[in-house]
Amino acid sequence: MNNLSMLTDLYEFSMANGYRQTITDEQGVFDVFFRKVPDNGSFVIAAGLEQAVKSLQNFQFDESDIQYLRSLNLFQENFLTYLKDFKFDCRVAAIPEGTPVFSREPLLTIQGPLLQTQLFETMLLNILNHQSLIATKARRITYSAGDRPVMEFGARRAQGPDSATYGARAAVIGGCTSTSNVLAAKKFGIPAAGTMAHAWIESFPDELTSFEKWAAVYPDNAALLVDTYDVLKSGVPNAIKVFKELKANGHKPVGIRIDSGDITQLSKAARKMLDEAGLPEVKITASNALDENVVASLLHEGAPLDNFGIGEKLITSASSPVLSGVYKLAAVIEKGKLIPKMKVSASREKVTLPGLKQVYRLYEPGTDKAFADVIALSDESLDQPITVVKANPLATKREQRIEKFDAKPLQSEVLDGATLKMAFPGVFDIQAYSKQKLTEIPAATQRLINPDEFPVYVTTKLAGLQEQLLEADAPQLG
Amino acid sequence: MNNLSMLTDLYEFSMANGYRQTITDEQGVFDVFFRKVPDNGSFVIAAGLEQAVKSLQNFQFDESDIQYLRSLNLFQENFLTYLKDFKFDCRVAAIPEGTPVFSREPLLTIQGPLLQTQLFETMLLNILNHQSLIATKARRITYSAGDRPVMEFGARRAQGPDSATYGARAAVIGGCTSTSNVLAAKKFGIPAAGTMAHAWIESFPDELTSFEKWAAVYPDNAALLVDTYDVLKSGVPNAIKVFKELKANGHKPVGIRIDSGDITQLSKAARKMLDEAGLPEVKITASNALDENVVASLLHEGAPLDNFGIGEKLITSASSPVLSGVYKLAAVIEKGKLIPKMKVSASREKVTLPGLKQVYRLYEPGTDKAFADVIALSDESLDQPITVVKANPLATKREQRIEKFDAKPLQSEVLDGATLKMAFPGVFDIQAYSKQKLTEIPAATQRLINPDEFPVYVTTKLAGLQEQLLEADAPQLG
Repeated sequence: MNNLSMLTDLYEFSMANGYRQTITDEQGVFDVFFRKVPDNGSFVIAAGLEQAVKSLQNFQFDESDIQYLRSLNLFQENFLTYLKDFKFDCRVAAIPEGTPVFSREPLLTIQGPLLQTQLFETMLLNILNHQSLIATKARRITYSAGDRPVMEFGARRAQGPDSATYGARAAVIGGCTSTSNVLAAKKFGIPAAGTMAHAWIESFPDELTSFEKWAAVYPDNAALLVDTYDVLKSGVPNAIKVFKELKANGHKPVGIRIDSGDITQLSKAARKMLDEAGLPEVKITASNALDENVVASLLHEGAPLDNFGIGEKLITSASSPVLSGVYKLAAVIEKGKLIPKMKVSASREKVTLPGLKQVYRLYEPGTDKAFADVIALSDESLDQPITVVKANPLATKREQRIEKFDAKPLQSEVLDGATLKMAFPGVFDIQAYSKQKLTEIPAATQRLINPDEFPVYVTTKLAGLQEQLLEADAPQLG
Repeated sequence: MNNLSMLTDLYEFSMANGYRQTITDEQGVFDVFFRKVPDNGSFVIAAGLEQAVKSLQNFQFDESDIQYLRSLNLFQENFLTYLKDFKFDCRVAAIPEGTPVFSREPLLTIQGPLLQTQLFETMLLNILNHQSLIATKARRITYSAGDRPVMEFGARRAQGPDSATYGARAAVIGGCTSTSNVLAAKKFGIPAAGTMAHAWIESFPDELTSFEKWAAVYPDNAALLVDTYDVLKSGVPNAIKVFKELKANGHKPVGIRIDSGDITQLSKAARKMLDEAGLPEVKITASNALDENVVASLLHEGAPLDNFGIGEKLITSASSPVLSGVYKLAAVIEKGKLIPKMKVSASREKVTLPGLKQVYRLYEPGTDKAFADVIALSDESLDQPITVVKANPLATKREQRIEKFDAKPLQSEVLDGATLKMAFPGVFDIQAYSKQKLTEIPAATQRLINPDEFPVYVTTKLAGLQEQLLEADAPQLG
């Protein structure tokens, strides 16, 4: 995570230098939001805020960075001096990690000198897009697994070291209980999980010897991989021999892992053999190219699996490997006056929400049952009743009146210049928070396939501002 | 790239500790190879070796790592001491970065103390899988683009910072000419590319003013984004005004970028307008959710595009986001005697190639036309003629005789203990090498869709060894 200030697209530097030469006193307001949810789900689990905030706090350029930027012959010296003496001077508000968030809701809003806010785009999107993507995928998988623990096993197939390590963190936010990745385990206080690979077994003359040697070294941590040769004819019988011996010596056998073949049939037969051998406490773990659909199918077929190890499909969100979060200008502030801005696009879907905003989650009064979100301008008060329209620009613009609700704001201030305004909760605290926030959302919205839409509205005032800016640009389109 | 020694699955540590307690003097030989090519292509562009080798050279544990590992209560003190005093003591051979490689060919082979070789699995696979995946995707995209430059633009949608930065490096190996990611550009000596985003344009009262301000700051680097409001009615006319002014003042306008809408229609109309305005030298860049298929389709329709900026679909290899490279035990060496090892699997496809091996590329004699690869045991000499069978275990095992060929070995030694045995070529040298190696492969093999298979054989001696080990394990299967 060192030197992320340079993890910035060249055009951000070019624009920042351009602002330095033209409109030095202007402030910008940018929102981070996404339009499409991966895997056609209905929500994203927000993640990455801790790294995003820390990266903003550490935003600095060293001498070699300045020299490199100078060597491009693009930038004026006054800009390079500004970077050399960079002092973070923005205010950041954000939705906490673990919160289920919906399309078009600003996950993070940053306000400050236009030059600075422009420079953070690439870094912030990289971090928030990645971690939110993996947290969302992990939540899908752990939803399928029900209360069975899911271990994150993907380090070897991740897209580089950070993808493995910050991906493991995001996987825990999304519900995983442990990771195989020792770096992530150490860094984020996640239990480290895993036992043996086929190589261990092949390093000994035969499978039984390899199991016996393992049990001698790890008598209280004997989870045995049983599919090197043949699960039912060799692996499970050999494991049973070793487990019985362990029990006879006062140890508690842990389990077996099946990593290939037809997991349903194999786990059913293995369960039967273990139970008949008096080992009902021995757990069965499945791994091997699992995802939320395979897990659901295995459990639907009654496979007696106690936990899952999930690798490449989780750590890369393989079925939907991109969260296309964007960073869009919502306003500029000139001489203290806020001027709302909006991207006008021929594609109606790409029209953005102008102005400084807040997102509210609306609950049935006196309950924890959320029924809608409302995006409002930050200077609006949400007095009952309110009139709203759908936030999705492709929806029919029909006004709706909401009579009664409790409204809770989702964004809160996290950083103001050098002053940190948030605590960084531990990753399991974030997971617990996420689970709690999910209980507030209707079950039909949480379904993996064809989820019901959770309504996201904008206030009529915000919708009106959007229309007004669209009209103002109309001549240019005509 | 600091502390990648901890980017290791827990079970590698558990096995290594187990080896330390049981079979301390045994050596292991592991191969890295893949079975399936992403996007149903026929080959992978090898990448990541430089980082892999450097990570092996820097493999060390600091005091906090040792303390953390001790806190897991899994490992004996003699093992923790071994890690604390870790001294790399393995030999590594590998296929150079940029080489097109085929299924089952060992990209990298490592030989050394079993304990050490086991520990490197996760880290090596993470690096090689990721970079080879992105190099392969980049090669598909640049193949579609022909001789038009492709710029890597994906940092904001990459899976974390390393995915962006090492991904940009891999993208250049696969044929990209530049990257928007300044960190990657600085680190690897890649040209940095890019100009402005919509935010620049929206920060000014109108599009023309924003273009004029840009041209004032960057008179010799004016590439203008023309789709903020309306490409043909606003963006291109405004760009033409600014470009004419620049030309009148002795500058050379660069180009326009179109990031939305129907790129074919817009680029054709824009080209016509630019040409009619006397600006035939102004280039047109396209950049909206492109991949090899969209690029091919645009060019097929005659879109007059000069270069491409490719983001999320490249940096995540979105259509096929995992290269499932594996790290498999090929032999153990006990008291100086090499004992070939093989993973026997109920799934024939997963059976591995035993023994210490070399891969040869076979050429028609006296030419640079490659027609097959042969995997042989390393102590075999490849005297003509040779008898071979297909390497794919699912293929019919028919012996074939190859009469005449020139054979070039693909693997060479890269690291021997503390001694580095290779140079680290610059990333554009690797790109040039890759392009040259690709000219040696039949054109039909390089097709993106339904490529012809490039034959990969094993020698009859290697096939015989494989059969022999399969037989030897048969009783356990029976």
